[in-house]
Amino acid sequence: MRLIIAGGVAGGASAATRARRLSEDAEIVILERGPDVSFANCGMPYYLGGEITERDKLLVVTPERLRQRYRIDVRTRTSVEAIDRRGKKVRARDLGNGRECEVAYDKLILAPGAAPIRPPLPGVDLPGIFTLRNLQDMDRIKESLDRGVRQAVVVGAGFIGLELVENLVRHGLQVTLVELMDQVLPPLDKEMTRPIADHLAAKGVALLLGESAEGFAEVEEGLAVQLKCGRELSSQLVVLGIGVRPENKLAVDAGLAVGPRGGIRVNEHMQTSDPDIYAVGDAVEIKDFVTGEPTQVPLAGPANRQGRIAADHIFGRPARFRGTQGTAILRVFDLTVAMTGVSEKTLRRLDRSFSKVYVHPTDHASYYPGAQPMTLKLLFTPDTGKILGAQIVGGSGVDKRIDVLAVAIQAGMTVFDLEEMELAYAPQYGSAKDPINMAGFVAAGSLRGDQTQATVEELLGTDGPGPASRPACLLDVRTPQEFAAGHIPGAVNVPVDELRSHRGELPSDRPITVYCQVGQRGYLAQRILSQAGFQAANLGGGFLTYRLFNQS
Amino acid sequence: MRLIIAGGVAGGASAATRARRLSEDAEIVILERGPDVSFANCGMPYYLGGEITERDKLLVVTPERLRQRYRIDVRTRTSVEAIDRRGKKVRARDLGNGRECEVAYDKLILAPGAAPIRPPLPGVDLPGIFTLRNLQDMDRIKESLDRGVRQAVVVGAGFIGLELVENLVRHGLQVTLVELMDQVLPPLDKEMTRPIADHLAAKGVALLLGESAEGFAEVEEGLAVQLKCGRELSSQLVVLGIGVRPENKLAVDAGLAVGPRGGIRVNEHMQTSDPDIYAVGDAVEIKDFVTGEPTQVPLAGPANRQGRIAADHIFGRPARFRGTQGTAILRVFDLTVAMTGVSEKTLRRLDRSFSKVYVHPTDHASYYPGAQPMTLKLLFTPDTGKILGAQIVGGSGVDKRIDVLAVAIQAGMTVFDLEEMELAYAPQYGSAKDPINMAGFVAAGSLRGDQTQATVEELLGTDGPGPASRPACLLDVRTPQEFAAGHIPGAVNVPVDELRSHRGELPSDRPITVYCQVGQRGYLAQRILSQAGFQAANLGGGFLTYRLFNQS
Repeated sequence: MRLIIAGGVAGGASAATRARRLSEDAEIVILERGPDVSFANCGMPYYLGGEITERDKLLVVTPERLRQRYRIDVRTRTSVEAIDRRGKKVRARDLGNGRECEVAYDKLILAPGAAPIRPPLPGVDLPGIFTLRNLQDMDRIKESLDRGVRQAVVVGAGFIGLELVENLVRHGLQVTLVELMDQVLPPLDKEMTRPIADHLAAKGVALLLGESAEGFAEVEEGLAVQLKCGRELSSQLVVLGIGVRPENKLAVDAGLAVGPRGGIRVNEHMQTSDPDIYAVGDAVEIKDFVTGEPTQVPLAGPANRQGRIAADHIFGRPARFRGTQGTAILRVFDLTVAMTGVSEKTLRRLDRSFSKVYVHPTDHASYYPGAQPMTLKLLFTPDTGKILGAQIVGGSGVDKRIDVLAVAIQAGMTVFDLEEMELAYAPQYGSAKDPINMAGFVAAGSLRGDQTQATVEELLGTDGPGPASRPACLLDVRTPQEFAAGHIPGAVNVPVDELRSHRGELPSDRPITVYCQVGQRGYLAQRILSQAGFQAANLGGGFLTYRLFNQS
Repeated sequence: MRLIIAGGVAGGASAATRARRLSEDAEIVILERGPDVSFANCGMPYYLGGEITERDKLLVVTPERLRQRYRIDVRTRTSVEAIDRRGKKVRARDLGNGRECEVAYDKLILAPGAAPIRPPLPGVDLPGIFTLRNLQDMDRIKESLDRGVRQAVVVGAGFIGLELVENLVRHGLQVTLVELMDQVLPPLDKEMTRPIADHLAAKGVALLLGESAEGFAEVEEGLAVQLKCGRELSSQLVVLGIGVRPENKLAVDAGLAVGPRGGIRVNEHMQTSDPDIYAVGDAVEIKDFVTGEPTQVPLAGPANRQGRIAADHIFGRPARFRGTQGTAILRVFDLTVAMTGVSEKTLRRLDRSFSKVYVHPTDHASYYPGAQPMTLKLLFTPDTGKILGAQIVGGSGVDKRIDVLAVAIQAGMTVFDLEEMELAYAPQYGSAKDPINMAGFVAAGSLRGDQTQATVEELLGTDGPGPASRPACLLDVRTPQEFAAGHIPGAVNVPVDELRSHRGELPSDRPITVYCQVGQRGYLAQRILSQAGFQAANLGGGFLTYRLFNQS
């Protein structure tokens, strides 16, 4: 058995070492275009920012190690130029001397990755304009930083763009972030990105949303970035982080099936349309575990698992990839942002019905020092309460809660299960009622009809029938001090503790929407009013949720 | 409807506020013996240690708040003396003036808690000897600390004992910890507590295992603690943390069913043997979710949930308590220790079959600064791989992994599900192959027969047929440097990278056990040898696991 693996980074290297553990006899060949295999691409921004000081740390596994320990024939700086499916061989090119040779395979795994998109804009190839894919790109950016640049422009506010922004600021640069969409981190729902935009501003980042770079020119100070609005930004360093495109040329040339967005099509065993050819990692189209739709998720975790599964299947194991659920996490300075499952915007696009709740708990007991707030948005089916997705923005403990919810989605759990979760509580780590339990209480309560929830969209008339449905009475049940510090326009202040005695003054013929700061006092207020016969609803997540949508 | 709640701390206060949200009309009365309701008992040690500086922070909800916001008739310093089940009334005593009165109920919830055990030892009532249950106990210990004590003895190395030790050391005291068992934290398996004992020693705590206090005497320096071994310890402060006993007197006097360990018997709706009387919190006997056995778990999380469920059921909801799975967490200085589900010792006691694995990953990618090691022990069924329990000791990220495993147990997941978990990865938070995935790979690999695992007990002959089964050949596949720094007696060193070329020198007629540092190189070595026809097994978790059992 000769197994050829085209590409030796995350998915390719995982496939190779797994294959060796399964078979001592197989001949395993890695053909890798670059000089490195299995490097930590997620670490590159932090090397640029100086948190990771030794470049060698990014070399997770060296070619030498793969040769010695795993007896893998690793050929770096060797690109696969073509696949001869009928003859079951690939044409490989030594990038050092240009020589080509043919290598026969019994099974072939394609792990070519995805390439950063470099749009054909005027001046895009000028020196000082970079993308970041591999250690060589990183070295070039590092060189540029070492020459003492002062201003940088990052184009694209996705994961890599935001990581670069943080690290360039840490390096002392003035950074402008340009993003075409009207929000940062496009996979998230817009309102959940509001705290990130605020935090970027607080860190001195100039954030230009709904803006794009139209061209680049050399000027005295370095580069001029020409924006759509007509403005020009001065800069000595530009990094493009506007997305990646699956490296599918080999597959397309060989006639393998490819999806509409360019991902190589594979089945659950990671087999392409040719059963002797597998594909793994950023180049493939996979199934979204929650929606069942095809998707592309260029992340290291799924790539590693896919490599393992391809090797397993080649050596006769029944391994299956269950799809991805888009779990992702990002640190943006002092914030942590994370998501799992499907977003509201995707649910709307697919026209799926859903309910949602927002909660704003702290990561651990508030009586213990250092508790940090988070905002958690939970999406679930309105009938059974099955969890569809979650997004969290906050500080400590965000990573934990997103992982708990990722497991809940994998297990097909509901919001009723969240109520009952027995999570580890000591004051340093959580609360007797964990943020997860709290989200479960609110969501399950609304499904059971205990809590009648109103959304900000309903309140503002931006959802459904429009402003006509705006409630006639909006009640702020916080303290007068909180009310004075900011409230929703048109609200009347009746603190919850005085609500029972002021009941007689409230309209019984019109709906009442109550709200507090995070939704908890509002919930009690809604219960008091509903039981007294009023048509009351509680604004989910309270004033803090309202502020995600509307900030003065 | 008049609802009487006897006890207003965690479970009682939760029941009261839930009841009010469900019914504006109900008359809700809390009778609480102490002066406070709903205080943060988990925070008390940290107030003593000085991390929590304001005592008021420990008052989660005041009687005033319960009265004003929830219209609850809160009577503190009022104890329930007796229940008249036939007459459906309780006799309550005002501890201020000694007056008694009768209060009728439609439904009664008992939330009396559990009392610290104070063994009848000579001198146990001397001044300076404390238990810690409520804020008044805490105030007395604080007074003692403020008088400038230098030496403390803590008796009992359970959760509260260890929390006290940490905080007394933080306060500058010399602390001796006396524990009857041969390990700290008796709910954990012994080998998993070894790192805790080492850490306590490193922090200057004198730990006396297998030792007990037999009596106390007043001496010039304060107190003499007489130990079983005959030694005496000087001290000015003694805290007893040797366990709690359910406060069941009211229930027993009223003829309610009580379990063999004193817990008040309840059904899944938290109803006692009298359907009009419920019981919640530390005083009840509940079902272990994993084993189905009755158990008592004095923890705040389950108490809160039970209070909620009792109120729900009283007001006609179908709420059920699913049992507890014993999820618990503790910080011990710089360590975090956590568990969920069932322990190996419990499985052995119940004679249940199980398999186990140990892994020693870091909390996040090792290429990113600050990665901290952890040791994770996973218990699962040997047939289907269903997860039974987990214990983790380490630093950052332990809380996250125990919560993930707690959810997995709740969902009835298997080790095969752990392999596929898509957890959030960025280098600050995890690894592309998370510790949870790693545990899944090892456990699932061993169930599939890819990995043949040996346990330390098998190696040492302390499990099963005895030393006769000791393998004839023990192979250390680490580097010569690692081998020289410490190895298992009798081992021969053949680094994994040289194993293939030394195959001819290995015995083919006897079993071979290989090991490395954490189990990963050993796994490859075992695969190499097994495929070459040797009877090879890999010591699960490697030398680090061996060291949990044997430390020189």
